[in-house]
Amino acid sequence: MAAGDLLGNVSIVLVHTKTPANIGAVARGMMNMGLSRLVLVRPPRDPEGEAEKLAAGAEAVIRNAARFETLRDAVADHQLVIGTSRQKGRLRKNVHTPRETAEQVVPLLAKNRVAIVFGREVNGLDRADLALCQEIVAIPSDERFPSLNLSHAFLLIAYELFVAARSTTPAPSPALAAAGELEGFFGHLQGLLQETGFLDREHPDRIMLTLRQLFGRARLDARDVSILRGILTQLQKSFQLRKPGGGSDQA
Amino acid sequence: MAAGDLLGNVSIVLVHTKTPANIGAVARGMMNMGLSRLVLVRPPRDPEGEAEKLAAGAEAVIRNAARFETLRDAVADHQLVIGTSRQKGRLRKNVHTPRETAEQVVPLLAKNRVAIVFGREVNGLDRADLALCQEIVAIPSDERFPSLNLSHAFLLIAYELFVAARSTTPAPSPALAAAGELEGFFGHLQGLLQETGFLDREHPDRIMLTLRQLFGRARLDARDVSILRGILTQLQKSFQLRKPGGGSDQA
Repeated sequence: MAAGDLLGNVSIVLVHTKTPANIGAVARGMMNMGLSRLVLVRPPRDPEGEAEKLAAGAEAVIRNAARFETLRDAVADHQLVIGTSRQKGRLRKNVHTPRETAEQVVPLLAKNRVAIVFGREVNGLDRADLALCQEIVAIPSDERFPSLNLSHAFLLIAYELFVAARSTTPAPSPALAAAGELEGFFGHLQGLLQETGFLDREHPDRIMLTLRQLFGRARLDARDVSILRGILTQLQKSFQLRKPGGGSDQA
Repeated sequence: MAAGDLLGNVSIVLVHTKTPANIGAVARGMMNMGLSRLVLVRPPRDPEGEAEKLAAGAEAVIRNAARFETLRDAVADHQLVIGTSRQKGRLRKNVHTPRETAEQVVPLLAKNRVAIVFGREVNGLDRADLALCQEIVAIPSDERFPSLNLSHAFLLIAYELFVAARSTTPAPSPALAAAGELEGFFGHLQGLLQETGFLDREHPDRIMLTLRQLFGRARLDARDVSILRGILTQLQKSFQLRKPGGGSDQA
């Protein structure tokens, strides 16, 4: 399988981009680096066609872009979702450089679709969007002036993927669970943890984020998810049986 | 010596840039990647201040930029001049990737000033400008769509320099001859080779380019240049003595 085929399984996802010119610059950079799948979540209005002006020959990438209202829908059929962020904080364990990310991702591309997600200019991805990501890629930069232009941030990651894909002979790689399946599992898990009182019903996010990162690192496949959901279902049944008002072994 | 100090000896030289916004995007990327020395050769008029708009906080880099009419003057006080180009052709032996270039350049930065030269959008550097470069850096890209945006091309090289500088403990590195000294030597050499008829007086460029690349790879220091010029002077004297009309041992 050639580098170009591998990179065909990478989606570049731009969330709520503000400036159409940045979408054009990303489209051009995508074609420079062998990428073709662009996904736009709530793209900006572009009455002047600024995006296509900056695309400089890569207009087809924009015209063929998939468009979604939510990031959750946009990545549902992807097996690995990687967010870009400078705010490491609680996500620390799953943060990698572009080079590390490329080296991890490229071998997975033979059998999996990988989404690289970029947030809005200035603000980046918000918490809810970051929670949908199993990994974070953080770009090394001068700490006195760390904020990169959106198309620059994109380009460095695309370049590392391109370089890694050209030097990789794909080994057999596992087929992972899609983000949609994972979200089903996380919803199930959160429900159970709230029923049991482990999670504060009002503020479940902090613990859930830790669990999302943990299972993200575990690279679950469909069978793993099926087993985990079987466990959750069984736990829920047991819990229902013991709740006041529920049945019990003694009844 | 910290990474920042090493990178202080890198100059980013933009030759005859057409679009002011690209200068702004480069200035921002320079500060992201720990660079500060911008050199502009024949910059564009910018009545609307487009460059500073795109600089997004890096306006000082543009205001402090050195400005020159010719590349030769712009790089005269640099010990290593590296051009960016996609046209490899006759320069093949001295062409490297951004990563290779960064690994070669960073150890030299403790004692040498290095210029990275970027040509005009679309056309790139012309032959005369490329002849002033000892090395060429070529950016890997998809051969079906190889032409990068100017600020993107800049950024990939700056990123590799930044990454290499952060991971380098500088070893003692040699102080090389400055481009101005090298140009004096090449002028001297070309003169002699024309006098002796080795070089076609009308079309000296092809052979001279090969010689420039050869001596570029040799990384000459000031003493090397001094010895080579001594040799040239001696050869010229001998040649004058033997020419019809010149003196001879028998006279």
